[in-house]
Amino acid sequence: MNQVTLSDVQRAAARLNGVAHVTPVFTSSQLNIAAGAAVFLKCENLQRVGAFKFRGAYNAVAALPPDRTATPVVTLSSGNHAQGVALACRLLGRQAHVVMPGPVNALKRAATITYGATVHEAADRQQGDRMLGALLEETSGVHIHAFNDPLVIAGQGTAMLEFLSVVPDLDVVLAPIGGGGLLSGACVAAHGVKPGLRIYACEPIGALDAIQSVRENRIVPMTNPCTIADGLRSSVGDMTLPILHAHLSGFFTVGEHEIVEAMRFAFERLKIVIEPSSAVALAPVLRREPALHDQRVGVLITGGNVDLSAFFPTFLRKREPAP
Amino acid sequence: MNQVTLSDVQRAAARLNGVAHVTPVFTSSQLNIAAGAAVFLKCENLQRVGAFKFRGAYNAVAALPPDRTATPVVTLSSGNHAQGVALACRLLGRQAHVVMPGPVNALKRAATITYGATVHEAADRQQGDRMLGALLEETSGVHIHAFNDPLVIAGQGTAMLEFLSVVPDLDVVLAPIGGGGLLSGACVAAHGVKPGLRIYACEPIGALDAIQSVRENRIVPMTNPCTIADGLRSSVGDMTLPILHAHLSGFFTVGEHEIVEAMRFAFERLKIVIEPSSAVALAPVLRREPALHDQRVGVLITGGNVDLSAFFPTFLRKREPAP
Repeated sequence: MNQVTLSDVQRAAARLNGVAHVTPVFTSSQLNIAAGAAVFLKCENLQRVGAFKFRGAYNAVAALPPDRTATPVVTLSSGNHAQGVALACRLLGRQAHVVMPGPVNALKRAATITYGATVHEAADRQQGDRMLGALLEETSGVHIHAFNDPLVIAGQGTAMLEFLSVVPDLDVVLAPIGGGGLLSGACVAAHGVKPGLRIYACEPIGALDAIQSVRENRIVPMTNPCTIADGLRSSVGDMTLPILHAHLSGFFTVGEHEIVEAMRFAFERLKIVIEPSSAVALAPVLRREPALHDQRVGVLITGGNVDLSAFFPTFLRKREPAP
Repeated sequence: MNQVTLSDVQRAAARLNGVAHVTPVFTSSQLNIAAGAAVFLKCENLQRVGAFKFRGAYNAVAALPPDRTATPVVTLSSGNHAQGVALACRLLGRQAHVVMPGPVNALKRAATITYGATVHEAADRQQGDRMLGALLEETSGVHIHAFNDPLVIAGQGTAMLEFLSVVPDLDVVLAPIGGGGLLSGACVAAHGVKPGLRIYACEPIGALDAIQSVRENRIVPMTNPCTIADGLRSSVGDMTLPILHAHLSGFFTVGEHEIVEAMRFAFERLKIVIEPSSAVALAPVLRREPALHDQRVGVLITGGNVDLSAFFPTFLRKREPAP
């Protein structure tokens, strides 16, 4: 079993040094008043590819044996991991094959192709898994899983290390949970340097498998996720689950309207673009969860890749004066 | 005639110290590639009240005689200056009366009221001017103009001083032009410390009075502005015009679709929310104006107060899965 340690996260930080952005930590007096707490936002929406996923992907690709640079990287993702792997491979001179199970977001596909990856579209997850197997065989490639990989977990943990280096006296940290890659990496990093920090997982009510999995300490598969938080539709993995079970202090669940309201708060008041998955971790702060009252609360803002194509045309139309 | 000097801007900076945010300067490799230049964004959308206007308003209110704190402040603005005056007065313990000529943005009215100001709605600009006069008489208040005021101009100039302290080797600066308060303050500040800096005014094609005014060195009144850049519909003033005429290197005009595309670039790629008036200064960079090629280009991102209320409801509806 591959255990992930603080040293792994520190090694990842060394690999990412000068490559990943050291993202800023935002504060806002308006947010503090709304939350009844001192809130710190680690803005991974400002990370390369617009999400923390670049960290884990780059760490995993950079750790591949240098004598086999011709070996392509193969992954399955229709989201931010796809872009992370694509950019990491471009930077490190490797070919990337990305299987995208539908429905595919046109913007994320376009970005992944822009970074130089070959995209293979699959009708659904099942067909995607079959295509992934076939591609691995055909290309003799190496598979980098979106979260169930110790190097990916360690890479994501670097965001938490940075966060605590800027705000060492946090009481609580909130992060969204999908497959658990970011959160498990954050647990290892945070408790490696600050054992008493309380870490909470945040999950949409419409995709409530991870909380159940951690409670029961077994993988409860996700069935029919129904949430706008498209980054949180995965089930946890057998590498992330034991870390989460050991480290988490608790959970917050949020509804779909709360997700939209938290996005809206970020856009309108904080002037930053966050994606629905990030809003899942901001929503408990905005509804003033009692456990956060008067605490120093860190929130991992995981990404900012929102499809805004529906917005801008209406914006111009709406503002054009009547003839 | 009240001339504004670098010393005035420096005095304003001292007043604003610890009160206004020192806003961050953003860079983005994606933006640099798109622009064919090294671009630096001074993010006044992250300023208090969501716009640079807080600087000038606070400087003007803070400079009022301290022995007359009971004297109310009266202003006319339906935009960011309204919020700036309202917050400045709250912080400095003064009553604020804000006349808002219609059509009034509900969000800006609500924010102005939240900051404690009394809002007086006028049907249009003419009625607004009459109400302003009546209020000044009735309350024995002091008028703080949105841009044609040396203290306001000096306050806005502090954004440029900060900008050059972080990026001293800029070649060019772009800013949008409405009444010219920000741009004239920026001219005084910039040429006070860096006389060779080229400064360009950016104006929507649908509101092309300022460029004509500066060219002819006389105030050409704005007639029937037709642009989504709602912050740029004013004519220049007799205090801002001579500064602009003396300091500007040139102009860029932009179309309405370019404004929307620049907003979109900021939202989707940079993950920051900017208002249409700010996008007016980003658009020339994105269309690769020849004068900016390979230069170190500073852009004053003036504000982030966009009405997004049309977006979020459709967002949730759009993403809800079919039954």
